[in-house]
Amino acid sequence: MGSTQSPPVTLHSINPKVLKCEYAVRGEIVSHAQILYCNIGNPQSLAQQPITFFREVLALCDHPSILDKSETHALFSADAIARAWQILDSIPGRATGAYSHSQGIKGLRDAIAAGIAARDGFAASADDIFLTDGASPAVHMMMQLLIRSEKDGFLCPIPQYPLYSASIALHGGSLVPYYLDEATGWGLEISEVKKQLEDARSKGIAVRAIVVINPGNPTGQVLAEENQREIVEFCKKEGLVLLADEVYQENIYVENKKFNSFKKIARSMGYGEKDISLASFQSVSKGYHGECGKRGGYMEVTGFGADVREQIYKVASVNLCSNISGQILASLVMNTPKVGDESYESFIAEKNGIMSSLARRAKALEDAFNSLEGVTCNKAEGAMYLFPRLHLPQKAIEAAKAVNAVPDAFYAHRLLDATGIVVVPGSGFGQVPGTWHFRCTILPQEDKIPAIISRLRAFHESFMEEFHD
Amino acid sequence: MGSTQSPPVTLHSINPKVLKCEYAVRGEIVSHAQILYCNIGNPQSLAQQPITFFREVLALCDHPSILDKSETHALFSADAIARAWQILDSIPGRATGAYSHSQGIKGLRDAIAAGIAARDGFAASADDIFLTDGASPAVHMMMQLLIRSEKDGFLCPIPQYPLYSASIALHGGSLVPYYLDEATGWGLEISEVKKQLEDARSKGIAVRAIVVINPGNPTGQVLAEENQREIVEFCKKEGLVLLADEVYQENIYVENKKFNSFKKIARSMGYGEKDISLASFQSVSKGYHGECGKRGGYMEVTGFGADVREQIYKVASVNLCSNISGQILASLVMNTPKVGDESYESFIAEKNGIMSSLARRAKALEDAFNSLEGVTCNKAEGAMYLFPRLHLPQKAIEAAKAVNAVPDAFYAHRLLDATGIVVVPGSGFGQVPGTWHFRCTILPQEDKIPAIISRLRAFHESFMEEFHD
Repeated sequence: MGSTQSPPVTLHSINPKVLKCEYAVRGEIVSHAQILYCNIGNPQSLAQQPITFFREVLALCDHPSILDKSETHALFSADAIARAWQILDSIPGRATGAYSHSQGIKGLRDAIAAGIAARDGFAASADDIFLTDGASPAVHMMMQLLIRSEKDGFLCPIPQYPLYSASIALHGGSLVPYYLDEATGWGLEISEVKKQLEDARSKGIAVRAIVVINPGNPTGQVLAEENQREIVEFCKKEGLVLLADEVYQENIYVENKKFNSFKKIARSMGYGEKDISLASFQSVSKGYHGECGKRGGYMEVTGFGADVREQIYKVASVNLCSNISGQILASLVMNTPKVGDESYESFIAEKNGIMSSLARRAKALEDAFNSLEGVTCNKAEGAMYLFPRLHLPQKAIEAAKAVNAVPDAFYAHRLLDATGIVVVPGSGFGQVPGTWHFRCTILPQEDKIPAIISRLRAFHESFMEEFHD
Repeated sequence: MGSTQSPPVTLHSINPKVLKCEYAVRGEIVSHAQILYCNIGNPQSLAQQPITFFREVLALCDHPSILDKSETHALFSADAIARAWQILDSIPGRATGAYSHSQGIKGLRDAIAAGIAARDGFAASADDIFLTDGASPAVHMMMQLLIRSEKDGFLCPIPQYPLYSASIALHGGSLVPYYLDEATGWGLEISEVKKQLEDARSKGIAVRAIVVINPGNPTGQVLAEENQREIVEFCKKEGLVLLADEVYQENIYVENKKFNSFKKIARSMGYGEKDISLASFQSVSKGYHGECGKRGGYMEVTGFGADVREQIYKVASVNLCSNISGQILASLVMNTPKVGDESYESFIAEKNGIMSSLARRAKALEDAFNSLEGVTCNKAEGAMYLFPRLHLPQKAIEAAKAVNAVPDAFYAHRLLDATGIVVVPGSGFGQVPGTWHFRCTILPQEDKIPAIISRLRAFHESFMEEFHD
């Protein structure tokens, strides 16, 4: 029987999966810092300005009654006004305040499908698009769908973005790690994946899917087309769902690499609906726009039977629909101003300004890390992060142990205390045992990068000095 | 080993909890209808206009660079401009495009806490507020937190809003029904709740919480203060978490009832943090504003220990944060224009116009239902629904059985085919076995209500005629 003495809910009486779930990016080290955030891929929190055209359209869709007013033409570009009308006309009753279809507004999904088709050169269908409040809920939906018990496994890259480990833990599945090869620029070796798959199967794990993050988070690598083909072939052969995190598809900083969606790769190999089950995740939070606060995104789901798709729809419908502003923004990101539109020149200038600055910042930080004693750092070919390796002196590792800290967390804490710079310890993403890293975003304002580098350098030198063997 | 022959995912290999989950409001009957939607509480899909002040502020926060322009003063009210500045100033870096704190922007939570304190006359704290993409994700968070296995039970009203049954099924818990008493206007009898609690406990179910929906969905009842006190006392005595669905708090249509939050009731009884664990859910989707597409809402969580609260925060952080427009709107709904503000008069006129129209529509539909042979209908004291009971002739029940349909679903299908009016069969909400109902919103435009009533009447008369005993 119940009692008035003890509280109804304690740590011992909550869902143990919640207790088990960890999310390093938003973990403990973050909460006491007020200073220089290099931990989260949150561009606008570091003064990156939103893309004007996107915000114009959002504002007009929020308050359509100004669309007819003459003053509006002085405040908004003509193509933003035209686009707002077009979007409103695609919404039943022009009701931006209504729940939409649980997959998202059909007209916006059509626009996104058209954008995907233009990107890939292969057909895409609105029926395959599920609009979501950012990519995270889409990942949770797929995990919720696929995980029956801890015997269901998911191949995840190590290091990985901890959304995956958190979601697998929350839904009670098993993470099956495959290690990216730091020596080859965080290469994804099929032989390693195959070894881990077989190892997991030998332990009775039913491996359901492989997570591939491309461009990589936290690693910044961009997969080569040939490598992607191997992955697709592997999934087909082994009967794995391919969960493709493609949220950084716009974030490429090197000339010799280009983003290819896994769907494009699969289709170019002649594989269709019946050959491979694929979910591709996209978000408005990343790219050059970085609209994290809008919570927009989608997944494109192909190669699942109609009956399973109906179950995905059901899971989507349990939260009714994603927010309409985020839906609109997702359609804009996949259909930007075209040559001849009033906004085109300024849009391209804003976009290129951000992209080239990100590339310069990535390079500057990479060079800085590589110039430090005991630090090696792969290039950020894409995404928003560098993941330098710390070759820590034995004394530093012992000092960390003495305070019950993981060595890279110890380093990150000391860095924070000394400089106010917040990075995420590599242990939050996973790494080869005995190696230590941290993730640092390339997002601080460009004019602050030199000061960050010199603060980093001063701290690192004194740290290495302090713990010199 | 894997195989290329069978698809990797089939209905037999997905999470059985997903298969089990049902969500009547968005179920099968809805998908083939294109016509008169009386099924979902989605006001703006039925041409209800958004509140101007809210949309002005949202548009300005979406595109703050127009705040300084002179034309803006011709298009937007002065207090909307002032409020937008105030909101922007409460956001670090004025970055509406950045991820916020996972509980929501602190300044907006402060505003909401102030609004709660003004409503209740008892203190509220921003630390207790978790902003969410509508109320549904908040409910899921609490279920995820509390459910360890199917041995964890949740007392839910029958009839209930199927979010609760769906969420409990998805997270693998057990729904413990308690029946509302239709004869006393859907009264909530503590003796019934107690009986069901004891019954569940005798079967080995650990009953964790009670869900109370006030005003009721689908029933429209508004709890009396004395009844709420009994519920609070009961929770305290039995060690139950009180999950209070208060999303219809603004939707009251009768003079003799008033909304009281459960927190206000508990505090007025002298019960504080240590006495009762309470989560109150609020949404921007309901009320007079009905901003369903904005996906804004919050839960106020009190009476949980700091360690458990940290776990709630962790679950919230797995989706990073809720959308900022929805956060802003939640703060507006809890802090509307005040006397003297430029928008005040028009805001009140818009609000009162919607509320009085809703009250007239509720009454007209209630009277119409009660005038039909074999239909009885309680008053909609609040919320957005009527839940009339169908006293079906035996022949109709047999005709339904013959086509493998639940009798009220059979009726609803026939109604849809004959009139284009979509309602939700009572079986989707639960009802006393052998009784049949449907849920009908009060949301169609007022000038369409007479035509709806006459279509309903014609259909019902011919249905009763057809199946006359």
